[in-house]
Amino acid sequence: MTVIKPGGVIGILGGGQLGRMIALAAANLGYRCHIFCPDERSPAFQVAHETTIADYTDMEAIAAFCRCVDVVTYEFENIPSETARAVAELKPLHPGVRALETTQDRLLEKDFLNASGVDTAPYMAFQTREELDVAYKKIGRPAVAKTRRFGYDGKGQTLVRSKSNFDEVMKVTNGTPAILEGFVQFDREISVVVARNALGEVAAFPVSENVHTNHILDTTIVPANIKDVVEAKAKVMATKVANALEYVGVMAVEMFVSDESKQIIVNEIAPRVHNSGHWTIEGAVTSQFEQHVRAICGLPLGPTTAHGNVVMKNLLGADILDYQKYLEDPKAHFHHYGKQDPRPGRKMGHVTWINPEG
Amino acid sequence: MTVIKPGGVIGILGGGQLGRMIALAAANLGYRCHIFCPDERSPAFQVAHETTIADYTDMEAIAAFCRCVDVVTYEFENIPSETARAVAELKPLHPGVRALETTQDRLLEKDFLNASGVDTAPYMAFQTREELDVAYKKIGRPAVAKTRRFGYDGKGQTLVRSKSNFDEVMKVTNGTPAILEGFVQFDREISVVVARNALGEVAAFPVSENVHTNHILDTTIVPANIKDVVEAKAKVMATKVANALEYVGVMAVEMFVSDESKQIIVNEIAPRVHNSGHWTIEGAVTSQFEQHVRAICGLPLGPTTAHGNVVMKNLLGADILDYQKYLEDPKAHFHHYGKQDPRPGRKMGHVTWINPEG
Repeated sequence: MTVIKPGGVIGILGGGQLGRMIALAAANLGYRCHIFCPDERSPAFQVAHETTIADYTDMEAIAAFCRCVDVVTYEFENIPSETARAVAELKPLHPGVRALETTQDRLLEKDFLNASGVDTAPYMAFQTREELDVAYKKIGRPAVAKTRRFGYDGKGQTLVRSKSNFDEVMKVTNGTPAILEGFVQFDREISVVVARNALGEVAAFPVSENVHTNHILDTTIVPANIKDVVEAKAKVMATKVANALEYVGVMAVEMFVSDESKQIIVNEIAPRVHNSGHWTIEGAVTSQFEQHVRAICGLPLGPTTAHGNVVMKNLLGADILDYQKYLEDPKAHFHHYGKQDPRPGRKMGHVTWINPEG
Repeated sequence: MTVIKPGGVIGILGGGQLGRMIALAAANLGYRCHIFCPDERSPAFQVAHETTIADYTDMEAIAAFCRCVDVVTYEFENIPSETARAVAELKPLHPGVRALETTQDRLLEKDFLNASGVDTAPYMAFQTREELDVAYKKIGRPAVAKTRRFGYDGKGQTLVRSKSNFDEVMKVTNGTPAILEGFVQFDREISVVVARNALGEVAAFPVSENVHTNHILDTTIVPANIKDVVEAKAKVMATKVANALEYVGVMAVEMFVSDESKQIIVNEIAPRVHNSGHWTIEGAVTSQFEQHVRAICGLPLGPTTAHGNVVMKNLLGADILDYQKYLEDPKAHFHHYGKQDPRPGRKMGHVTWINPEG
């Protein structure tokens, strides 16, 4: 295992708030960060030691970037696979190509999960209208059609209640590979943010419960309102996934839980630090960002204990303008991602409350 | 009062670990930092949005820097007074010129403290050998001769046990203005890190006890091992000082305490975030660095409550190479300042333990 000592250089593909918060955590441990992002206004650039502004497919820029760093990671999963492979030839890439490629494709991901002994919703691949019809007959209704690649925050998804929705599905998938997923009845969505390092050490944070609005995370609550047995089972599932991928870094495993049956299925995996782990910055002994840095640099993982009951709320668009209210609230920790333009729905910051009731 | 909203630009004079940690805290609140420092290898540059490499007396560079920022602060008190005055003409400077000039000169500082109703050791100014002799007769022995300006970590100080030390004193002071200070018997050194914003809100952190080795801070312990009445009195004294200076920002007031007499005298004031406040990063609800940013930007101050018993230890020189030990310790939070060269005695990082015994 390659250990990148404090003082080394971490390359980060992607310059959004996740890259920014990785860079801030890395700096506390003495690492310098080199951020690679096509957008010159990337929020992560504001706290980076070095920056490269180039497209992810610019292989010369990728090679030059790799020469300047000791290890490479990424803050979003839509890095082109060819880029990831090129990076991995030159420098340690964590999480690795396999984790990235598996999670970039909903079909590969679900096949992998089921092969690892982890349940998912029923699903079937389709591309043509005829295949959709076959899948629809098998999966039943309601169902959700999803493009296999490049979906996030509900994009590329269509609810299928009857065959009358097929036109819309084909318009959205536009002939690209897709899956039809059975609609699963669940009581709550939870996620397990889990870290694994190259030594095989695995550490899961307490399970969080996530509330979405318009397919975007609104609030994370820790501990999740689930039985201990469900919490334990969720962590075992996430650990199984991390081990099966020989994963290195922090990942988030999103799950759906049925309270009565205690059934848990995995919805999706994010091979990166995750919005549902932002509460760890003040709410846990080690933050998910420091944990990610520890994992990818070959350092021991830190303790994941929570400091109590924690609530994290995203600040979208103009929500960020209420900063004064949060700064005056003695229980609140306010975060602003340094983005200048508060477009509606844009993730501008978040607030974390520790023991808000206590 | 000028409010600098999150998203604004903070100018920081000085690029060491204090500037670095201010910049990291500022980034969490969405501020971009522009660091001004003559040394191109400044650790704060690694996390800054913009940097200026120039001498503090380069008034053109200072003016250009001021045009790029919304507010200016500094991480060390030896900023030339002319520079501070020039900055203050162009942009809000916090802490202000008065705080800086008062604390840059041991005589002005002690005169100010006594005028504010805060006790100090007995002292008398001298410059020539004849004046030293007069001061020695008045102050008694042992005494400590200190240059009035540019002293830190024990530099510019000479212990005076008898007249036979006069030669050494005159060699060290070299004809520059100095003071002779009575040697005070004390049981412990404490410091109060206190913040004041332009609205006049004042918030002191729990008092810390500081252990020095070779005149350099080795360990900070919170809470200090002092009676509640001493803790309360120390906070009142620090608040008095902050108010008397109409101070804006975080300052540290170093004090000596006699356990039996409960007497407290102020040793010196640092008009900036301070090594004895590093424990607040994980050990208090608000860190001294975030508090400083809140104060200088006209935001409400945050709560200063400690999370329990806290111990902070500096990592000097080669101490930093023991990082693995600290990363493996579940109670320890490891900080590395990104400096490449672990020269003996150099402040390379620190470790904070929360409830190490609990």
